[in-house]
Amino acid sequence: MTLAEKVLDRMMSRDAFSKWMGLEIESVGAGTCKLKFVVKPEMLNGFDIIHGGVVFAASDSAFAFACNSHGRIAVALDVAITFTKSAKVGDALYVEATEQYLGNKTSLYEIKTLNEAGELVAVFKGTAYRTSRPVIEGIS
Amino acid sequence: MTLAEKVLDRMMSRDAFSKWMGLEIESVGAGTCKLKFVVKPEMLNGFDIIHGGVVFAASDSAFAFACNSHGRIAVALDVAITFTKSAKVGDALYVEATEQYLGNKTSLYEIKTLNEAGELVAVFKGTAYRTSRPVIEGIS
Amino acid sequence: MTLAEKVLDRMMSRDAFSKWMGLEIESVGAGTCKLKFVVKPEMLNGFDIIHGGVVFAASDSAFAFACNSHGRIAVALDVAITFTKSAKVGDALYVEATEQYLGNKTSLYEIKTLNEAGELVAVFKGTAYRTSRPVIEGIS
Amino acid sequence: MTLAEKVLDRMMSRDAFSKWMGLEIESVGAGTCKLKFVVKPEMLNGFDIIHGGVVFAASDSAFAFACNSHGRIAVALDVAITFTKSAKVGDALYVEATEQYLGNKTSLYEIKTLNEAGELVAVFKGTAYRTSRPVIEGIS
Repeated sequence: MTLAEKVLDRMMSRDAFSKWMGLEIESVGAGTCKLKFVVKPEMLNGFDIIHGGVVFAASDSAFAFACNSHGRIAVALDVAITFTKSAKVGDALYVEATEQYLGNKTSLYEIKTLNEAGELVAVFKGTAYRTSRPVIEGIS
Repeated sequence: MTLAEKVLDRMMSRDAFSKWMGLEIESVGAGTCKLKFVVKPEMLNGFDIIHGGVVFAASDSAFAFACNSHGRIAVALDVAITFTKSAKVGDALYVEATEQYLGNKTSLYEIKTLNEAGELVAVFKGTAYRTSRPVIEGIS
Repeated sequence: MTLAEKVLDRMMSRDAFSKWMGLEIESVGAGTCKLKFVVKPEMLNGFDIIHGGVVFAASDSAFAFACNSHGRIAVALDVAITFTKSAKVGDALYVEATEQYLGNKTSLYEIKTLNEAGELVAVFKGTAYRTSRPVIEGIS
Repeated sequence: MTLAEKVLDRMMSRDAFSKWMGLEIESVGAGTCKLKFVVKPEMLNGFDIIHGGVVFAASDSAFAFACNSHGRIAVALDVAITFTKSAKVGDALYVEATEQYLGNKTSLYEIKTLNEAGELVAVFKGTAYRTSRPVIEGIS
């Protein structure tokens, strides 16, 4: 198991909300993460489309897994998200995090959400603050 | 019932995810909205604090109620959120939306989330695109 | 002279681009700053309105003066800006920074730009990273 | 001359602030744009590094050229920028705009600024509102 896999394992095992969303891990690496989930009825808003908060939350989980993958605890500081297409019940969504910058104190990620047709649902840009504490005691 | 109240009623009655979050309406008006909710165990991430996606989602609901309150369907376009303080299980959070700009095609809102001690948990800035369709058929 | 005034004085005296913009200081305090400037022909874009970059830059200067006002060097990390109204040559613009959060490592500001009629031209939300170095040697 | 080149020509010929910055066009296409400029003394802030507003403004110009390249006037609505590295007098900076989404009413771009060593200086995410008016009368 790589460090990124160990970190993901530890984080995911305790992450109640990511479990509620039904996030499946497609892959994880140093600074990257790919997730998949399917839109459930409980995720809809009053217009019968996915609540923007759920799209954000899935991206935010991918962001958290990617920015913690180096072994040090990192926390979300600023995020900007743009919504370009809605999704309906039963749609499968793919969430992919890419590291754009890794500094000592901060790091930056882009997370794209795509539907099965490959259309862009949202783009999320997240800045993390990197603490000096390890995600897993003794490993970092 | 004011138009803002009718719109909220219609939106909230169908909004499965806002119900899941347990959002309570404290007040609603033209361009404004105040919500309250309590952090539940299912809302936590792997660090035992509230998942950023839930903080975002509650703000996003307040944003949606505020930007639709004028009677025309409005959809989230761009959002930027800054996280300043975390929250734990049992914390009550207060979410307040203020309208900063109302144009014909777009509108802009600031949503602040505060804890019971009045400390700032997050600030959300959201731009909505205003369609010409009414939220409630025949009323706008 | 307050600490905020000393810091502003030091920063402004060396800030070539703020001078180019013709920024005038209306007031400065701990975490706050009010500026004024007039739109010049060199500030226009190809549509004969003020270049968005200039609106941003004036807000960014107000942000810098406000986040450095406590005496420690702070640098811009993430900024989100929404443009709501354009401005033309000769318009006077008022730029006002408010501190929304002051932490040990980061701080958060909202900067509004208004025209003479009090209409909102832009809203800027900026997060700063606070270093431990003093703006003025020996004072902080 | 392609449509994108004609539009750029028209916009650049009138864009006083882009000229002041000394922006050179490396390439332009449908939805894309590459610029280059060199940091001048008038672009510095009080810490002897490039003013964040200038980094923003160069990105904003690339964004404007890219989003108008399809022939319809498009205006900046929301922008989020993250600063990752500073630049000094004499540094050459490369600004590259990529189209992430092109809808009927809105479009979305990512603009990266890199230095000569290929290091990331800033990432800019911009949403444009697309009007129905042509940039050049009779062509769109």
